[in-house]
Amino acid sequence: MTGTEVLEGRVRDENGAAIAADLTSHGVRVVGTAVVDDTQASIEAAVSAALAGDVALVVVTGGLGPTHDDRTMAAVAAVAGLPLDEHPVALARIRDTMSSVRLRASDATREAAARKQALVPRGALSLPPPGTAPGAVVAVGDQTVVVLPGPPWECMASWVHAVQTDRVRALIEGAGGGAPIVLRIAGVIEPEFIEALDDPMWHAQGLEVGVCAKPGELELTIRPDDAVGRSLEAHLDLVFPGAIFSRDGALLEQVLGAALVAQGQTLVTAESCTGGMIGARLTTMPGASAWYLGGVVSYDDAVKRELLGVPGHVLRDHGAVSAETASAMAEGARDRLGATWALSITGIAGPGGGTPQKPVGLVYVGVAGALGTTTRELRLHGDRERIRLRACTMALHLLREVVTG
Amino acid sequence: MTGTEVLEGRVRDENGAAIAADLTSHGVRVVGTAVVDDTQASIEAAVSAALAGDVALVVVTGGLGPTHDDRTMAAVAAVAGLPLDEHPVALARIRDTMSSVRLRASDATREAAARKQALVPRGALSLPPPGTAPGAVVAVGDQTVVVLPGPPWECMASWVHAVQTDRVRALIEGAGGGAPIVLRIAGVIEPEFIEALDDPMWHAQGLEVGVCAKPGELELTIRPDDAVGRSLEAHLDLVFPGAIFSRDGALLEQVLGAALVAQGQTLVTAESCTGGMIGARLTTMPGASAWYLGGVVSYDDAVKRELLGVPGHVLRDHGAVSAETASAMAEGARDRLGATWALSITGIAGPGGGTPQKPVGLVYVGVAGALGTTTRELRLHGDRERIRLRACTMALHLLREVVTG
Repeated sequence: MTGTEVLEGRVRDENGAAIAADLTSHGVRVVGTAVVDDTQASIEAAVSAALAGDVALVVVTGGLGPTHDDRTMAAVAAVAGLPLDEHPVALARIRDTMSSVRLRASDATREAAARKQALVPRGALSLPPPGTAPGAVVAVGDQTVVVLPGPPWECMASWVHAVQTDRVRALIEGAGGGAPIVLRIAGVIEPEFIEALDDPMWHAQGLEVGVCAKPGELELTIRPDDAVGRSLEAHLDLVFPGAIFSRDGALLEQVLGAALVAQGQTLVTAESCTGGMIGARLTTMPGASAWYLGGVVSYDDAVKRELLGVPGHVLRDHGAVSAETASAMAEGARDRLGATWALSITGIAGPGGGTPQKPVGLVYVGVAGALGTTTRELRLHGDRERIRLRACTMALHLLREVVTG
Repeated sequence: MTGTEVLEGRVRDENGAAIAADLTSHGVRVVGTAVVDDTQASIEAAVSAALAGDVALVVVTGGLGPTHDDRTMAAVAAVAGLPLDEHPVALARIRDTMSSVRLRASDATREAAARKQALVPRGALSLPPPGTAPGAVVAVGDQTVVVLPGPPWECMASWVHAVQTDRVRALIEGAGGGAPIVLRIAGVIEPEFIEALDDPMWHAQGLEVGVCAKPGELELTIRPDDAVGRSLEAHLDLVFPGAIFSRDGALLEQVLGAALVAQGQTLVTAESCTGGMIGARLTTMPGASAWYLGGVVSYDDAVKRELLGVPGHVLRDHGAVSAETASAMAEGARDRLGATWALSITGIAGPGGGTPQKPVGLVYVGVAGALGTTTRELRLHGDRERIRLRACTMALHLLREVVTG
């Protein structure tokens, strides 16, 4: 991972996390990731240090652009003790991509950029470039260095190609550690969990257990995925009945979508303080249109009245942030849009707008269905984004509970 | 940065990026970040390696929980050659926090957890804990190690406390490198930019220039922020007139919000393929209610007809993904919700749903105002999330162009 932009935190290092997750899901143990600045010396030092750790694979992303500042190929070549060669197939591919894009750049600039980006360490395999920067698979003795472009989309597309090369595929198949059991748990807080897990029996049987707290849920990872691992899962079902809502790593929105599809039901949303976050999250998944119809972002009270039919007296008497308004929002969305279920959310995300009676973090969620409407009051802590994220997750959990009975 | 969950990519390392961004904005040069697994040996090795690099400050996050697996304090103490002491103020604070939360855990478990989490390297400053895990500021000779809890909200809240300690504040004030000029640019692609910047004059004058491509925009960082730096900005204004839309680091949604507030205008949205992402993004900022009223997520065509009044014949004759539908969505949202402006978006985010005539990545955006409606056709590439993100950004740019004339 390289790049001054990443280091300074203006770009998040998505690539490292995504590749580590992919390798882990194939049973490869990832021993570390690092972000370094984009000077050749820093990249060489990081790649050398990684190879010295006796790992089978080092993945380096970023620094493959056309400018003199893009030094990753040169750094990897130096570490491997190989010269840089112009790769004819890579050059042809880059010229082809460049010719399909209208650039204001001169022909000379363009050709210089293409030649720079076609350089690979001698003997390396050049990967098909999703943009104009081809990655490469470089053998360094028994070890392998995979070099990928930095922009996340190009990086992940190149990674798919890299994984299909004989060298990387053999390495991943050879790892064979198997994916862990991933359980997602709602309604239980971390200290309770720790107590339930703090039984020497599980350690004695060689289980590796990790607990990770996420906004509104816990993620538990159990290795290996065998009879002993599954017996811990059964133990947790006894101690926390109904708390495990996902046993195969599926996300909350996937669990919910599957339940709605199975029952032939549909959902609409009415969001105030979350401004559309629930809709955005539900539609991240392809195929959401089978059960999610859409909804209303009723940020302003006028929208609550006009599009959701929330009565003016409810807003006047109870306020926009109240169980009564949450209820009216959900019922209005359900009636007007003709869905099986409607989920509503209204609250004070802060930092301003709180009062002693209705502090920042007070959120009401509502679920309207054929048999009536359920509301829940939440009192959340943290900054604006944390309150909004937790509110979304907890609203979706309330919906999941109601939908799955 | 520690934690097996982070390494495996199930949790993104937000903390490292956020702290690096904060330090950079104060002119501190961040030389590297690393993610390691949560064994004591790995944490000790990473902290030792960082201190060996002759840095003034090392920030370690995560691994402060109550279990025997949480080894960060022990690792930092070992590196510093200090014993671990129970910190009486920390212990009192943790007991206080625990007593305010209903836990299923027994008193003994709770007290053991509190005592474990109150341990700090001898002489270290314990930071007020936002949760139950206090961070610490540890002096190691002239160098400083700051230890922070892992959950992002707790981490950032603790970081605010750490920055206020004499030791860390002096260090940051002493750096004094000054923040860079950050320019955001729309409508120009990276190779054009590289050509404009590829003038030896800027290098000769000692400017450090970084270009970072983001979905739909470029971010340019120029160091130092002085007369020479600002002369490069003026040069870019000549070469790419109107392309720089932010000169102080403000994000697109902040620029847009400021323009609307200045003109006393309001905005509503009508989103199809983005499912609420634009509303969610606009409401990330406190105070958005001054100019953003809300909108409709018209994922299903029935919602386009019923809540936005898109005529059935427009949907039949032109399809849901068409300039005509985008136009009708924007006009319907503006009329029904009474805003100055309405922004609409409809498209095919994929991976399914594309045809030869209307491929995945085809998106129409519309802006309706008092003087009429403008639409724009986008043809985007990449996976579903990339298409949705770029569509949001480009829709907001179209709106910005129209709103600012």
